[in-house]
Amino acid sequence: MIVTIVGLGLIGGSIAKDIRKSNFATKIIGVDNNEEHQKRAKEIGLVDRVSKLEEGVKQADIVVIAIPVDKITTILPRVLDTIDPATTVTDVGSTKKLITDAIGKHPLRGNYVAAHPMSGTENSGPDAAIEGLFDQKICIICDQEKSRPQHLALIEKLFHTIGMDIAYMSADEQDHTTAHVSHLPHITAFALANAVLAESDRQIIFDLASGGFQSTARLAKSSPEMWGPIFKQNQKYVVESLDVYIKHLNDFKNSLIENDDSRMYELMRNANRLREILNGKTSNLVRKKSTTTKLFKK
Amino acid sequence: MIVTIVGLGLIGGSIAKDIRKSNFATKIIGVDNNEEHQKRAKEIGLVDRVSKLEEGVKQADIVVIAIPVDKITTILPRVLDTIDPATTVTDVGSTKKLITDAIGKHPLRGNYVAAHPMSGTENSGPDAAIEGLFDQKICIICDQEKSRPQHLALIEKLFHTIGMDIAYMSADEQDHTTAHVSHLPHITAFALANAVLAESDRQIIFDLASGGFQSTARLAKSSPEMWGPIFKQNQKYVVESLDVYIKHLNDFKNSLIENDDSRMYELMRNANRLREILNGKTSNLVRKKSTTTKLFKK
Repeated sequence: MIVTIVGLGLIGGSIAKDIRKSNFATKIIGVDNNEEHQKRAKEIGLVDRVSKLEEGVKQADIVVIAIPVDKITTILPRVLDTIDPATTVTDVGSTKKLITDAIGKHPLRGNYVAAHPMSGTENSGPDAAIEGLFDQKICIICDQEKSRPQHLALIEKLFHTIGMDIAYMSADEQDHTTAHVSHLPHITAFALANAVLAESDRQIIFDLASGGFQSTARLAKSSPEMWGPIFKQNQKYVVESLDVYIKHLNDFKNSLIENDDSRMYELMRNANRLREILNGKTSNLVRKKSTTTKLFKK
Repeated sequence: MIVTIVGLGLIGGSIAKDIRKSNFATKIIGVDNNEEHQKRAKEIGLVDRVSKLEEGVKQADIVVIAIPVDKITTILPRVLDTIDPATTVTDVGSTKKLITDAIGKHPLRGNYVAAHPMSGTENSGPDAAIEGLFDQKICIICDQEKSRPQHLALIEKLFHTIGMDIAYMSADEQDHTTAHVSHLPHITAFALANAVLAESDRQIIFDLASGGFQSTARLAKSSPEMWGPIFKQNQKYVVESLDVYIKHLNDFKNSLIENDDSRMYELMRNANRLREILNGKTSNLVRKKSTTTKLFKK
């Protein structure tokens, strides 16, 4: 099976590594408008060859679009205009509402499966690509009823092959949920880094940054070119999640200022619930699909 | 050398493991008012025996106090009242101003070295103790001029033995700095967990919590009994750091609401500086001491 990956960065490159290793793809064509990335992707063997967008897309059984979300909204319609009518198209963007709206009325809408494989690191570019990035993580598939069943099945198989369980929801629900568990944490990290950088012109403060600071602020190293468009596309839910977060910060701050110990300890104990919840049971929604997953796994 | 550790949790237990392995201590006496912890610390070999505070402290060459900071302010004077005049005392609390004030006029003030080894995990109790927790991390020693040189040298040797570099500053400066790089990140994590928990009664949201969320919110699992007293003792600087942080969050939020892309990207790019700074050069302050460190290391 020929897979064309548009965008040879962290996500596109990591998918390439996994689908090559599992023999899901027999040939991988890469498309990237950054010449350095093209060159590097070939050098390190992410792709068999690089190609222009139209040519690469025309030959593909599957096209995976792994570029910043603002670019997906413009490239995805072009890809659907270009593909053979049997080709399956997916994307990996962290937002889904504006992207699915962009091709809502396209005659080949059914060839497209809206996906968001939830994994990543704070690094970017072809050299950031790693094997196993998606293993045991969850891929959200949106508006599945708008994809034709053959295309849906093939994309499910693609994500199962790279180790993911699948959750199904509407594009709007995915944007709402992802604002909280992914977009908000990135902004909290950017702001934490900025707050600490603003407070100090002394290197000493960063020498002292222990594991706690480093893990909390890790996402502040993330690519602005990737994250800016995500925040903008998901503005409504991101602002909503920021408002809730700031309210909780002020709540904590006030409990401290007012020496309201019982409130402060209540807030910390409530936050401690994360320990059980993150290690706890999986929701029915995902668990059901995980069971199916096993059938697909090699 | 006999080392008595008061508080057999994550920090006290991890120090015990390292000083036993390196033969820095020939005998480790444990003190803890939690009977479960006493029992467990003996079972897993953290300590050679457990003892009541006064008895354990009287026999020690070094006393290491590793209990919540509110308890340190009451136990430390009692320890100085009890020790043999040759014994060295240190603590590992994350705040230093109120602790050093508590024994400022004690006749054995010079026997005490105020220390803050900057390392930890989100876990607690004797079973959370791990080898190598402090390796390549930094220990802050405060108001070194108030410790007699023999006692200072022995505590420097203790922390060097477990792999730490040492930074020297005043108790006030340590509290200010630590508010930003340690106390603030804990509150941002507590608030993030609370914000996401408040937004959702659905397990699905946590199933979707990928590595980004998990690392950003990891500290929300931390012990309220340890952190509450830290925030209270360091209230002034913690509130100051929270104010700066909330200002930066609002700044980001406003850039998003106002579609001020240049501002939003500027904020992200500034935060990206963390990448170089955390991997960058070490300040002279710490580097100098690191060089000395090598002389002490086995």
